[in-house]
Amino acid sequence: MKFSPALETLIESLRCLPGVGPKSAQRMALHLLERNRSGASVLANALRDAVDRIGHCQRCRNLTELALCEICSDTRRDQRTLCVVETPGDVLAVEQAGGYRGCYFVLMGHLSPIDGIGPEDIGLDRLQEQVETQGITEVILATNPTAEGEATAYYLTEMLGSRGIRMSRIAHGVPLGGELEYVDGSTLMHAFTGRTPVVRS
Amino acid sequence: MKFSPALETLIESLRCLPGVGPKSAQRMALHLLERNRSGASVLANALRDAVDRIGHCQRCRNLTELALCEICSDTRRDQRTLCVVETPGDVLAVEQAGGYRGCYFVLMGHLSPIDGIGPEDIGLDRLQEQVETQGITEVILATNPTAEGEATAYYLTEMLGSRGIRMSRIAHGVPLGGELEYVDGSTLMHAFTGRTPVVRS
Repeated sequence: MKFSPALETLIESLRCLPGVGPKSAQRMALHLLERNRSGASVLANALRDAVDRIGHCQRCRNLTELALCEICSDTRRDQRTLCVVETPGDVLAVEQAGGYRGCYFVLMGHLSPIDGIGPEDIGLDRLQEQVETQGITEVILATNPTAEGEATAYYLTEMLGSRGIRMSRIAHGVPLGGELEYVDGSTLMHAFTGRTPVVRS
Repeated sequence: MKFSPALETLIESLRCLPGVGPKSAQRMALHLLERNRSGASVLANALRDAVDRIGHCQRCRNLTELALCEICSDTRRDQRTLCVVETPGDVLAVEQAGGYRGCYFVLMGHLSPIDGIGPEDIGLDRLQEQVETQGITEVILATNPTAEGEATAYYLTEMLGSRGIRMSRIAHGVPLGGELEYVDGSTLMHAFTGRTPVVRS
C-alpha cells in the first residue's frame, strides 16, 4: 500500500533535492498538503520561474537572469582583477566577507578527469580569452583547498602564468578563532609554510 | 550583496519545506540550477498538480485525488471497523505493518485547545455521524501516545462510549527488539499496567 498516485509523484519528485531521502520527502509532502498549500504553490512558481529565466552571466558565468550579472555590470568594481571560484555560493561568501572590489570568474565546478570534467567544461577557454582580450592584470585563485580545487588552481597557474599578470592563491592556514589543538595536520603545515614575517613597529 | 532576484525568490520559497533553513535552501537552489534543472521542472509540476488535485476523502478524510480513497472504496475491507489515526503518515504505517483489514478515520491533527483546535477542526462531528449512520461496530483509537493524542482518545471514548460499539486503544509498551534498560519510565509503567496473562499450553 502506498499513498495516492499524485502524492507518490510529489514525494518522488522532492527527492531530487540534495539531502532529502524517502522519509524526509514524505514528511515534506504531507506538511505542504496539510499545512501550507499556499507555500507549495509559491514554491512551484518559483521553481518554474527560476528554471525558465536563470542562466549564466556572459562574462563571469555566475547564475543570473540578466545577460551580465550585477557584479560584472557594476562600473565601480575593478574590471581588471578576477577572482576565480568554483561555485556561485563561493561568490556570495567572498562578497559577504566584504573588502574585495574586483570581479569574478565562476568555474561551476572543478577539473575532475575521473568524472570526465575537463578544462572546457569549466569554461577555461573562455577565461583564457578574457585574460587575453580584456586587459586583466591580476588573477586570484580561490578554488577550494581540496585535491580537485588544488589541481584546478595548478592548471590555471600553468595556463595563465606566462602572460605577465599577477597571480596568487588565497592563503590556507589556521582559521580565526580556531584553536591549534583542534586544527588538522595539513592545515597546520600550510600555516607554517605560509608564515609571514612580523615586523617590530 | 545577495544572489539575483529570481534565485533569492527560489531560496526563500524553499524555506516553506519543514526542516529547511537558509543554508540548506541555498544549497538546494544552487544544486537544482547547476545540476538538476529537469528535476526542478518535474518538482514544479508535481507541486502544482498535487495542490490542484489532492483533496480529502469524503469518508475517512485521508489525502487523495479521488472522491473516495482507495481504502474506503475497497469492498474487500471491513467497512464496519474504524481505526482513528492522526495523520496520513499513520495510515501508511499501519498499512505497512499489515494485518489490519478495516477502514480508517484520519483526524488530520489532534485536539489542542491551546492552538484553537477543537473537535470540529479534526472532523469529530463527521466521525460521530458516520458511527451513527453507517453501522460501525468497532472503533480502534490509534492516536499518538502524546499528551494531545491521549486527550483526543479520551474525548473520543466519551463521545462514542455510550453507543454500544466496541472501542479499544492500541497497546503501549516495550517495543519489540527493545531493551528494558533503555526504555523510558512511562513506557515501562504502561507495559506493566497493560500486562497480559500467560497460559501454560
